[in-house]
Amino acid sequence: MAPWAERLAGVRGVLLDISGVLYDSGAGGGTAIAGSVEAVARLKGSRLKVRFCTNESQKSRAELVGQLRRLGFDISEREVTAPAPAACQILKERGLRPYLLIHDGVRSEFDQIDTSNPNCVVIADAGESFSYQNMNNAFQVLMELENPVLISLGKGRYYKETSGLMLDVGPYMKALEYACGIKAEVVGKPSPEFFKSALQAIGVEAHQLLSM
Amino acid sequence: MAPWAERLAGVRGVLLDISGVLYDSGAGGGTAIAGSVEAVARLKGSRLKVRFCTNESQKSRAELVGQLRRLGFDISEREVTAPAPAACQILKERGLRPYLLIHDGVRSEFDQIDTSNPNCVVIADAGESFSYQNMNNAFQVLMELENPVLISLGKGRYYKETSGLMLDVGPYMKALEYACGIKAEVVGKPSPEFFKSALQAIGVEAHQLLSM
Repeated sequence: MAPWAERLAGVRGVLLDISGVLYDSGAGGGTAIAGSVEAVARLKGSRLKVRFCTNESQKSRAELVGQLRRLGFDISEREVTAPAPAACQILKERGLRPYLLIHDGVRSEFDQIDTSNPNCVVIADAGESFSYQNMNNAFQVLMELENPVLISLGKGRYYKETSGLMLDVGPYMKALEYACGIKAEVVGKPSPEFFKSALQAIGVEAHQLLSM
Repeated sequence: MAPWAERLAGVRGVLLDISGVLYDSGAGGGTAIAGSVEAVARLKGSRLKVRFCTNESQKSRAELVGQLRRLGFDISEREVTAPAPAACQILKERGLRPYLLIHDGVRSEFDQIDTSNPNCVVIADAGESFSYQNMNNAFQVLMELENPVLISLGKGRYYKETSGLMLDVGPYMKALEYACGIKAEVVGKPSPEFFKSALQAIGVEAHQLLSM
């Protein structure tokens, strides 16, 4: 067998990252990475199951998918595994009411979540919303809880934009961990549970998977 | 000997913390802690050497001493060991030009420091100045250096104000450490060098010291 055919033997599904794999984000909606629109079309035309698995947490899935479709990608919301909906499921299962330290662009994902009288904090890549006031609010919520729960959508250190390197959620997660003497629960890559939920969505086992 | 006399045998000097020991900070200049004005006066009237050793880094020594004097304390600037002047000495010795992520109240301590074309970052309890933009500026300065130097004035987790608990410099130091994969140099308590400089100022050895 050719090397590629060998690597693909037994593969039944493909997980595709979005930012940096399908497109580069930036002003004006970003740009598709050369060949990626065609690659997605060919994968979806093949016998392979395809799932999009992203740590994007500044935008709702609706906004992200809209942006990708405008760039020519064949993609729908229900094909995307993202941290915000995964976090919502955890919040509902555990009866948690979060203080949300998040970007306004992703707030709509939490529309169905009760945020009154918070008993946990959800932190995501909040950008300019990482003000001292908002960080201190999150800190005060955690310090008033007997068992402080901090859920972090990813733990990335930084990402690249056309304007330069930007701090991601990870540093702010570390700040709250240190301030409160706690450990955050990470929802999103590289959490195994997050990958598992993406696999379940396409009915594929880990050993049958190709991820890029 | 009485227990106290026993503990004081051989003691030649006393290090006094300021915030939380001499006074409680807060709106309108804070309030002296009961008995502390008299205690300082008695210590200074005794055979003991007295030094004030603080991690205060939102105010210049001039402002801090002015505030304490208005509360009735017998204290002068030259009796205070504080992180900002200690950091300035390090910056001068090592030819470092800092990007200053600090509170405006302490900026005057750095008047004699060259801050053009920064080759390090100095971080202190910056309060509202811990904006995303300022944190990102500090991060970008560090990421552009071959050997990133991050100097942190203390590493406190939080402190108490009349309005509630407030995040101190430590969490933000941890955020930059994680983002850049580096370790900060802490100037201020609990750094041994910082205590040593306070002892040198009064010519007292560590074993001759009482600290509170």
